Amino acid sequence: MSSANDRLDPWLIEWHRIVAERDFGALETILAEDIELGAPPYWAKLSGRPVVHHLLGLIIQTIEDFTYHREWCEGGEYALEFTGHMGEHEVRGIDLISVDQQGVIRGFDVLMRPVNSVIELRDVIAPQMAEFLSQLAERRNDG
Amino acid sequence: MSSANDRLDPWLIEWHRIVAERDFGALETILAEDIELGAPPYWAKLSGRPVVHHLLGLIIQTIEDFTYHREWCEGGEYALEFTGHMGEHEVRGIDLISVDQQGVIRGFDVLMRPVNSVIELRDVIAPQMAEFLSQLAERRNDG
Repeated sequence: MSSANDRLDPWLIEWHRIVAERDFGALETILAEDIELGAPPYWAKLSGRPVVHHLLGLIIQTIEDFTYHREWCEGGEYALEFTGHMGEHEVRGIDLISVDQQGVIRGFDVLMRPVNSVIELRDVIAPQMAEFLSQLAERRNDG
Repeated sequence: MSSANDRLDPWLIEWHRIVAERDFGALETILAEDIELGAPPYWAKLSGRPVVHHLLGLIIQTIEDFTYHREWCEGGEYALEFTGHMGEHEVRGIDLISVDQQGVIRGFDVLMRPVNSVIELRDVIAPQMAEFLSQLAERRNDG
């Protein structure tokens, strides 16, 4: 399904390129300023481009062998299944992405299983996110 | 999207009916004998109709206000987003369902967030599944 969608959908081609090449500069340019992200380890949605950009980057970098499989699209709403590894353990997840007519991502949910891998992911990225958020707060106080 | 898909897809109409009416008898008839289920709380996939049927029933009954939202279908592969509650807390998840040309479910993955709700779900259903599996083993030994 992936290749069929790819041929029809320039947005998805670009998304695959960004993830494959870890092009976090390009990723930032396609996130809405007020984007909301529901990430597996967090209770509440996180919002705002800087925070969401950083967390998406951490997730993509932390999950090894990140690979897309089944993919669905309907009217700018994407569901993209992925697999990968956290250490020895396989993870399976899905990105639910809402894209507007300009190709900008307005909303993003990441769902994953099994729960033990999600806990592992949280343990790896939560300290890095806390560090980032504290730096962000400092920069805002300085400005 | 749900209503548009519904009108086009008799399989999805029946699936919605089964879930809404908790029609676990009808659910059993559309599960393949060797169905595999990847459920949020479990590491490994569970397989076989009796086990999968029981676990799907427990999940549907345990999540309160279980409601479908965005839905995608392509060539017998469904992605159905749902929300619900575990106690006070909202959960969001997706059912990834592979349906063959006879309308029989061959594979099923359930992905959910946030992690705390998945842990809550596990704590509720794991003892019930253990009880069911022990009864199943007894029945098989008797037979």
